[in-house]
Amino acid sequence: MTAISNKIINRLTLYHCILKYTAKDQTNISSFEIADLLNLNDSLVRKDIALCGVLGHKKQGYFIDDLKKAIEQKLGFTEHKEVFVIGAGNLGTALVKYADFKDYGIDILALFDNNVDKIGQEVNGKRVLALKKLEDLVARINVKNVILAVPPQVAQEVTDYAVKCGVRFIWNFTPTVLKVPKSVTVYYENIVSSFMQMRNSTIS
Amino acid sequence: MTAISNKIINRLTLYHCILKYTAKDQTNISSFEIADLLNLNDSLVRKDIALCGVLGHKKQGYFIDDLKKAIEQKLGFTEHKEVFVIGAGNLGTALVKYADFKDYGIDILALFDNNVDKIGQEVNGKRVLALKKLEDLVARINVKNVILAVPPQVAQEVTDYAVKCGVRFIWNFTPTVLKVPKSVTVYYENIVSSFMQMRNSTIS
Repeated sequence: MTAISNKIINRLTLYHCILKYTAKDQTNISSFEIADLLNLNDSLVRKDIALCGVLGHKKQGYFIDDLKKAIEQKLGFTEHKEVFVIGAGNLGTALVKYADFKDYGIDILALFDNNVDKIGQEVNGKRVLALKKLEDLVARINVKNVILAVPPQVAQEVTDYAVKCGVRFIWNFTPTVLKVPKSVTVYYENIVSSFMQMRNSTIS
Repeated sequence: MTAISNKIINRLTLYHCILKYTAKDQTNISSFEIADLLNLNDSLVRKDIALCGVLGHKKQGYFIDDLKKAIEQKLGFTEHKEVFVIGAGNLGTALVKYADFKDYGIDILALFDNNVDKIGQEVNGKRVLALKKLEDLVARINVKNVILAVPPQVAQEVTDYAVKCGVRFIWNFTPTVLKVPKSVTVYYENIVSSFMQMRNSTIS
């Protein structure tokens, strides 16, 4: 996709959420409705949407189906990425169940865990495999992306192992900073930082 | 705290993560070590840290304890905010167990759920209460902040109820946009947007 700022990506995914959950019999939506739900200026909404190549119709606003598809194309929901989840605890399980990730181009293939009680179970249709099988799986199906959802105490140890297995991209949901070789990229999902950013809002 | 940008808040929380998990016998850390772990420029690290009123010592770098405390003060980890979690499923449970939230000034008081199997249980020392008790609790202890971690299908319905109960701030972990009166603030924890932002990195 052509480069758009993170702020615009953030807003477009929220517009998409709105469209996804509109009533089945609603076919149109206006920039004013979207702006109102998100406390944004309606001209900003129209500008963002124009970036997706969609223009509103006078009085009718946008056709929901068309707008939804245009956002999906702009944000690349249709270019699927395959990932493994490491950690089948509450966080890993929540992520596998979260939000029909597949609709957004995130294909979770399997979970990995060390806990014998979890191995062999299924979470939302995905099998939990023994962590020691990761190396074989990475080699065999050439998937090098993982979501890390283990307890912080073992995050570095598990990362070292994953890197040894050939993993090259880690989406890190643990509140830890990971030491990795330069050939590996870590993306931090920093929930604490989110909290710190929002406490300057009106949280009382 | 004095206003600092979200990017700086994000980096400072990551520096704090590093300090939190250094080996117990390590007393000092250099800006180069921090920069190396996060793939940042070391001068940027020193600039961020100077904002917290801490200067490094030649050859010794920073004293870890001092730097940790300075970041905590700068980011306001010591100003505690009390919150309820609505939803005691995997996501709510993961959040309650996540990262010693209390260390960051987030005091989770209780969880709320409709599921009779969950009501009365404890998660990480926090009681799960019946959702219908929310109104009474909000009124009685005057806590108006909630973390929303329910299935997306019921997010709006639960939000309507929470607003009726007096909730004024919602940290929304569900992939939905919520309709609320102007007196209520919603902060979106947008995991899908994170993914879209990072897929432009080196995910393969």
